[in-house]
Amino acid sequence: MSRSIFSSYKKLMNRTKDLIVLSSAKAIIHWDMETKMPPKALEQRSQQLALLSRIRHKMSTAQEIGTLLSTICKSPQYDALDELEKRNVYLIKKNYEEQTAMPEKLVAEIAKQKAITIDAWKKAKKAKNFSEFQPELEKLVALSKQAAQILMQVKETATPYDALLDIYEPKMTADAITATFNQLQQGLITLLEKIQNNYKKIDTDILHIRVPVEKQRKIAHLLTQEIGYDTNSPKAAGRIDETEHPFTSGYYDDVRITTHYYPNNYASAIFSVLHETGHALYEQNLNPNWKYQPVGSPCSFGIHESQSRLYENIIGRSKDFWTFTLPKLKRIAAPALANISLSQFLHAINKVKPSKIRIEADEVTYNLHVIIRFQIEKDLFTNKIAVAELPEIWNNKYKDQLATKVENDAEGVMQDTHWASGLYGYFPTYALGNIYSGQLLTILARDIQDWRLRIAQGKLKEIGIWLAKNVHSYGNLYTPADLIERITGKKLDSESYLQYLREKYGELYGF
Amino acid sequence: MSRSIFSSYKKLMNRTKDLIVLSSAKAIIHWDMETKMPPKALEQRSQQLALLSRIRHKMSTAQEIGTLLSTICKSPQYDALDELEKRNVYLIKKNYEEQTAMPEKLVAEIAKQKAITIDAWKKAKKAKNFSEFQPELEKLVALSKQAAQILMQVKETATPYDALLDIYEPKMTADAITATFNQLQQGLITLLEKIQNNYKKIDTDILHIRVPVEKQRKIAHLLTQEIGYDTNSPKAAGRIDETEHPFTSGYYDDVRITTHYYPNNYASAIFSVLHETGHALYEQNLNPNWKYQPVGSPCSFGIHESQSRLYENIIGRSKDFWTFTLPKLKRIAAPALANISLSQFLHAINKVKPSKIRIEADEVTYNLHVIIRFQIEKDLFTNKIAVAELPEIWNNKYKDQLATKVENDAEGVMQDTHWASGLYGYFPTYALGNIYSGQLLTILARDIQDWRLRIAQGKLKEIGIWLAKNVHSYGNLYTPADLIERITGKKLDSESYLQYLREKYGELYGF
Repeated sequence: MSRSIFSSYKKLMNRTKDLIVLSSAKAIIHWDMETKMPPKALEQRSQQLALLSRIRHKMSTAQEIGTLLSTICKSPQYDALDELEKRNVYLIKKNYEEQTAMPEKLVAEIAKQKAITIDAWKKAKKAKNFSEFQPELEKLVALSKQAAQILMQVKETATPYDALLDIYEPKMTADAITATFNQLQQGLITLLEKIQNNYKKIDTDILHIRVPVEKQRKIAHLLTQEIGYDTNSPKAAGRIDETEHPFTSGYYDDVRITTHYYPNNYASAIFSVLHETGHALYEQNLNPNWKYQPVGSPCSFGIHESQSRLYENIIGRSKDFWTFTLPKLKRIAAPALANISLSQFLHAINKVKPSKIRIEADEVTYNLHVIIRFQIEKDLFTNKIAVAELPEIWNNKYKDQLATKVENDAEGVMQDTHWASGLYGYFPTYALGNIYSGQLLTILARDIQDWRLRIAQGKLKEIGIWLAKNVHSYGNLYTPADLIERITGKKLDSESYLQYLREKYGELYGF
Repeated sequence: MSRSIFSSYKKLMNRTKDLIVLSSAKAIIHWDMETKMPPKALEQRSQQLALLSRIRHKMSTAQEIGTLLSTICKSPQYDALDELEKRNVYLIKKNYEEQTAMPEKLVAEIAKQKAITIDAWKKAKKAKNFSEFQPELEKLVALSKQAAQILMQVKETATPYDALLDIYEPKMTADAITATFNQLQQGLITLLEKIQNNYKKIDTDILHIRVPVEKQRKIAHLLTQEIGYDTNSPKAAGRIDETEHPFTSGYYDDVRITTHYYPNNYASAIFSVLHETGHALYEQNLNPNWKYQPVGSPCSFGIHESQSRLYENIIGRSKDFWTFTLPKLKRIAAPALANISLSQFLHAINKVKPSKIRIEADEVTYNLHVIIRFQIEKDLFTNKIAVAELPEIWNNKYKDQLATKVENDAEGVMQDTHWASGLYGYFPTYALGNIYSGQLLTILARDIQDWRLRIAQGKLKEIGIWLAKNVHSYGNLYTPADLIERITGKKLDSESYLQYLREKYGELYGF
């Protein structure tokens, strides 16, 4: 590498390190807002977050970055950069071009309209009245369409909606998702019919036995310790706190999860902790040599979700896991759960029943909720449908595809915060995560043939090591599609995930 | 005010607001490091703090600030600015001139040497061996003398040590402190002799009855609630967390305190909570109209300390306070403290006995420790003594002025972290805080004549309202000397404080 390209690359990486460190600091400020901040501090906290965003934007769009990028990319020695360095340059360039292409006025308008729309959504949801929400959502969608048009140019995607998808799932397209989701939907409906034809009366009351919050906290720490998410050793890089909506936040050696504890729903905390722990391990196990570099970041929202769903569902709702864990759970919760059998517990936590609310859905029907949202988003951003039509379209799809009758828009089109928050193109990553998790499982099961036995023996950390080595450590070196193909030798394909579901539910429901 | 000076002032205040908001964000990051951060995160946390410092330094020394200041100060309309605006301009100018005068190289060298010296201090203290500490302290003192020389020019102080004092106590001089401390020392020694001549056997074992940490947490919340430091209402602007060394951190609507709980020393948490709450109320009660302005900040370290000592000692170790609070304390601690009488408790928490360790000293001898440090610092920075002589000088002063024999340097000259941390000129503010608290008490007692009765009735919030109105709300509008004179009509004077001590200890020791 010539002196010139080397020194430009080094300078570019130093500027980028500052950006990454600043983002990680901002994440702490945000975590604090959600977990610890005294309520009166809201105004000054929003000032702090806005300032850090402004500083970050200024740093990331600085002319110096553009000059360095141009020097590097136009250099005759460009090919002297190795794969990793080229990827870093690519990721920095992508971010720089997108940030500089977006007019500051539009960014500010969207930020402002988001806050207004979220507020309108909250009120309208409470009042079960979509018409209060509609005008603000219309404005936000219109602004987001403008942004998508601009992003489409920069990202060189076929459609504006593909540009939005690319934010969360780089290089993913609506066409590719449509093909996979069709396959997935077909498989899920067939499976759902089988389950419904083998109806079993399942007692879910056992999930609502009262377990005091103090004991649930101990259960959460038991689970994370089993998995290998360290929250209390002198080398711990994690912690568990409490928020209404669970989330994971952090960077490398400081990745924190949150959960909620409901005295009459101990299972809620269990599965949210398993889910967030999956996210947290991904962040913690990124290649340590890539810290403060763009490659040292997660690959995509879908790959992230594959890790959380793997721990929440594939492991966390398996017979093997509870063979090992149920006795421990009972010991901590004692005397509360003494009379529950493993079989009862497994059936209760895996009960399949179509419902109206995505976040309460079981493993089988969950993706059908996501598919509906994707279909609607795609049509909305290709101008096939209008915001005003959303409730009717939503309700019809729930009737046709999930056989459920939506009574009002609060439990229908207004149930999720995503659209009010300007997150368009985000929903599909939930189902992509499930699909990826099935594909990864195939390879994990090939490499660790007795993986089920190991889980039943409590050797969960071995699974974690495999995931760290085969998934997490690759960071952002590849697109999600490339990463999946490199790990599994196959392209995006729902079949592995469907296969996993068929085996599991066949055993549970006896078919 | 002309359009031109108005727009310059507004711009300057916007830049300043950014600086203040950034500092408040950094304070959160720092608080998190001390209270919540997982241990493995230390490296990335130091990167975050260093970056925020760098950004802050760049913002505060930006040429734009200098240009705006110069435009405003040279403007023929300068006198159209009101007192508040002039004070803001003065404070910004002072900070700008000091920051820009200090060579970046020297700032970096001092920062680096501080870290090295603190490390050497920790090791040398553990090994009770000053000679390990001496060479690093010599380097840090030499660098600090260089800085003091530069600051002296900018601040236009008579000596380099006065420039250091000005950092913590604006416009205070070594001469003024010497005069006051001589008066204070004389009064304290006389009082101490009287106390020793009226020897009383005091049972301090009652302060070491075991009180479980969980109960001590409840006691801490009881105390803060009584005082009016809100940690749990929907309008709370405070919270209590746990650290080895208690501190207060925050800004206006988010001011947090920390404490430590020792099962065998419940009094330790009680008085550290009272102390920190005094600091916290000051920050919270700054004039809300001055938020994000330089005037909206505390006046000085000494005035800050006056508030903490007022709550810790004048109120917190008074008969009146415990008349109201002891029954509540007993109820929470039950059955632990059931047999303690009010008189026993008051004598135990107010036992006077010369000792070697400042932070364990009683109210009467505490200031003698501070005076010794001030005498040594002053001589060190006027080159009358050398670092190598510190242990001998220290030990002699402790023998002469506190009648105690220092056995080794760990309990002698190396007991405090301040000098290892480069904090020269800081110590005097502890005693100044006590002196101020005595002067303020005189006026408080004039305005609320039955103040003792109100405390005994648990009406502590009335005291808080008086302090907010008469002290806190003035923020940084005046120098500490001017503030004290405006409130009390008098200049700095130890007599009120001595008077308060004589009355209190006369009653306790019966003379």
